[in-house]
Amino acid sequence: MSGDCDFGLIGLAVMGENLALNVESRGYKVAVYNRTTSKVDELLAGRAAGKNFVGAHSIEDFVKSVKRPRKLMMLVKAGPAVDALIDSLIPLCEPGDIIIDGGNTHYLDTERRTKKVEDAGLLYVGCGVSGGEEGALKGPSLMPGGSADAWPEVKDMFQAIAAKVGPNDDIPCCEWVGPRGSGHYVKMVHNGIEYGDMQLICEAYHLLKEVGGLSNDELYDVFQQWNEGDLASYLIEISRDIFSVKDDQGGDGFLVDKILDVAGAKGTGKWMSQLALDLGVPSTLVTTAVFARGLSAQKEARVRASEQLPGPADSQNTALRGVAKDLIGDKDAFVDAVRQALYASKIVSYAQGFVQLQAASAEHDWKLDYGQCALLWRGGCIIRAVFLDRIKEAFDAQGDLENLLLDGFFKDAIANAQEAWRNVIAVASTLGIPVPAFCTALNYYDGYRLARLPANLLQAQRDYFGAHTYKRVDMEGTFHSEWLDLRKEPKE
Amino acid sequence: MSGDCDFGLIGLAVMGENLALNVESRGYKVAVYNRTTSKVDELLAGRAAGKNFVGAHSIEDFVKSVKRPRKLMMLVKAGPAVDALIDSLIPLCEPGDIIIDGGNTHYLDTERRTKKVEDAGLLYVGCGVSGGEEGALKGPSLMPGGSADAWPEVKDMFQAIAAKVGPNDDIPCCEWVGPRGSGHYVKMVHNGIEYGDMQLICEAYHLLKEVGGLSNDELYDVFQQWNEGDLASYLIEISRDIFSVKDDQGGDGFLVDKILDVAGAKGTGKWMSQLALDLGVPSTLVTTAVFARGLSAQKEARVRASEQLPGPADSQNTALRGVAKDLIGDKDAFVDAVRQALYASKIVSYAQGFVQLQAASAEHDWKLDYGQCALLWRGGCIIRAVFLDRIKEAFDAQGDLENLLLDGFFKDAIANAQEAWRNVIAVASTLGIPVPAFCTALNYYDGYRLARLPANLLQAQRDYFGAHTYKRVDMEGTFHSEWLDLRKEPKE
Repeated sequence: MSGDCDFGLIGLAVMGENLALNVESRGYKVAVYNRTTSKVDELLAGRAAGKNFVGAHSIEDFVKSVKRPRKLMMLVKAGPAVDALIDSLIPLCEPGDIIIDGGNTHYLDTERRTKKVEDAGLLYVGCGVSGGEEGALKGPSLMPGGSADAWPEVKDMFQAIAAKVGPNDDIPCCEWVGPRGSGHYVKMVHNGIEYGDMQLICEAYHLLKEVGGLSNDELYDVFQQWNEGDLASYLIEISRDIFSVKDDQGGDGFLVDKILDVAGAKGTGKWMSQLALDLGVPSTLVTTAVFARGLSAQKEARVRASEQLPGPADSQNTALRGVAKDLIGDKDAFVDAVRQALYASKIVSYAQGFVQLQAASAEHDWKLDYGQCALLWRGGCIIRAVFLDRIKEAFDAQGDLENLLLDGFFKDAIANAQEAWRNVIAVASTLGIPVPAFCTALNYYDGYRLARLPANLLQAQRDYFGAHTYKRVDMEGTFHSEWLDLRKEPKE
Repeated sequence: MSGDCDFGLIGLAVMGENLALNVESRGYKVAVYNRTTSKVDELLAGRAAGKNFVGAHSIEDFVKSVKRPRKLMMLVKAGPAVDALIDSLIPLCEPGDIIIDGGNTHYLDTERRTKKVEDAGLLYVGCGVSGGEEGALKGPSLMPGGSADAWPEVKDMFQAIAAKVGPNDDIPCCEWVGPRGSGHYVKMVHNGIEYGDMQLICEAYHLLKEVGGLSNDELYDVFQQWNEGDLASYLIEISRDIFSVKDDQGGDGFLVDKILDVAGAKGTGKWMSQLALDLGVPSTLVTTAVFARGLSAQKEARVRASEQLPGPADSQNTALRGVAKDLIGDKDAFVDAVRQALYASKIVSYAQGFVQLQAASAEHDWKLDYGQCALLWRGGCIIRAVFLDRIKEAFDAQGDLENLLLDGFFKDAIANAQEAWRNVIAVASTLGIPVPAFCTALNYYDGYRLARLPANLLQAQRDYFGAHTYKRVDMEGTFHSEWLDLRKEPKE
């Protein structure tokens, strides 16, 4: 038995409620269910009153109320709750029905669940959803992956509710990503890039405030300007807004200055870092950003350390300080140098994210379309930015581009920015301002563009103490040397 | 039924063979067993001929040949083989017998196995063994943890075979580490610190070679000097040796220049990085070192990139280049600046390693003795160094020292080195030499010593787009603001 609802949604926290309202607003009839059933009644009596909703008080009634093939989406806390829901849905569903997970799920869980649900004769979709509460209501970025046969069934609805971009605002930020856990993987990389973007913006802010001496009003103007150029993006825009907000608890001054410098985290940045380590690809930006949040969280330890550990002495580095003063003395030049450092670092961050996607795609045989990934992030989500059009163009021009840094546009962008980027890092290092993400980006760039790194010495060490063997630049094969016998006898 | 052997060893690869010979050489009778039993016969007919050995051709005979309480040590490939061996040993053992894993095992496996073996009425030891083949034979560093009741039984033998340090060479590099997986965790951190040390030495080498223009002969002399000062250590010593070795395949020049710059890895550095991410502690040095090996492994991609990506133009950064030239012009001053950058970065690396040990110890209630950990690494192992005496002294003076950087000795060491450290990073950034580990160390120092980081902006962003809430510097409680309503209306 099936009903006449077009779509079913389980889990009525804010994200779920908003997504259900979004679907209904596009002309679909929506069934909703929540374990605590009072939430269902509240929604139907409240925000959904008079709208095309059916509230179910049991999972059986919920499934029955949706027409076949059913599209049943879960928006519940990632983890065991999702497995439990799948177990209760499978016996209630009929062949061809589609179970969709819209949560922030680890992709390995989605890989496993796709197989399980397909083995039960149903279809499964792991769908990354980005854009927060507002995005869910008005137009999120959607990254669906899983059972390919599900896509034709959900495509119209998903593209209808997704954010739109393009000159005519008609290109949906929703396309099929690939098999199994690929949708959740792409969402995770989105989040990891978001970590990098936020850390880079914080470092720029730190430099402008502490070295440049900019006030919040000046920071507002700078971020307003930046938001009209290459850096134009949602995160720059909301940073600009933040610099304008006065204390809302009755104090003097600006709210941003009253906020404790202890960053929280939900874990997707950590997942991306750990998976990069497993893949052996150097996604150093996201990892640096995660660790920077970790150091920020050690607030009391930092306060104690600040009373004991000296920074650079004023008398130190006279010449470098002179250069710093030259830059700082011309405030506009310094602000622009910081902008270029931020832009170049951001390019490296995105390049790393796509390299990780390529490595994961190869490992799992997902055959991802990287230009499409960039398009999915073009609107609706936290990292949305004009910049992503350039990335899409780069992959459209060369689908197997091995690194964004090799694309003409980005190559030139970094070439133009690198003098300022290097200056800013030299100044920050000299003056004692931490810029871990700026540095890690530059070090990736400088390491990647070198045909010869000093790892030859490292391999020699490993062969010396552990007989780990090494390869040579001039001969095929694997070599081991008896270093102790070959070395010059030390004078001791 | 039991025999008269004092010790049993399973797994006759080089490490196992050498460790068995080491034990026998201290006056113990040793039983050996290997799945491929021809290895047993070969050992007894070869290196063990005429020595106090019993070779077993079955695991039953092996167990029977050892006197109770039995000390049975496995030195086999970490992973399922260890579980299989434990399963076959348990029914053959008697109450009080001790099963010991000397492999490079993930500590979580050891946590699990300790419980399993104890539940079977036996004792279990997860023992980190460092020092490579030579250490196993002549005196390794041993890091045993697990069932506390096992320690009095194995202590004399383990301390007899371990490396010795101290003015009279009588302090063994072997003490009881703590419960369950703690021994293998301490070994993992040892290996992670080794990753950091090796990467830092490679960066110093890169700068001396490419910026300083030092020949291998000059590098030999510099490392010889360094090995007589604060940096004195096994890794500096073998690097010195490496610079003296001529090509052993008949070519001209030095062997180190013929070695391919592609670093291999066995995985313990990766484990430490991933566990640091789980703990939320910023162990940035080991992670940077692991990622640097990853980038080195992308050799062909780097060769392609090197033909396309520009470094800093010669006309750039005239003033900073002047400073670099000042430093480079005086070769001795430059060499000494690099030495100071290496030393300061190394201190940060060890500080991070101990912070991670503290976090893991707190999580698992291991109650580690950090001064003792430093002592275990003082000899026998790859990171052995005079430097570790200073760490032991720091923790002996203050057992709950929260960070090595706050110890008087290390605080002064960094205060003295920081001008050179900052200069070297400024120069490297300007000239385009990657120094990711030098940079990440400085950024940790500069972040840790700041009471106020820019994470307040990051928390504002998270609250703006995701209602993640924030805390304030001046009031208790958790806050959320309606940023969109509070912001200044942008001019658009």
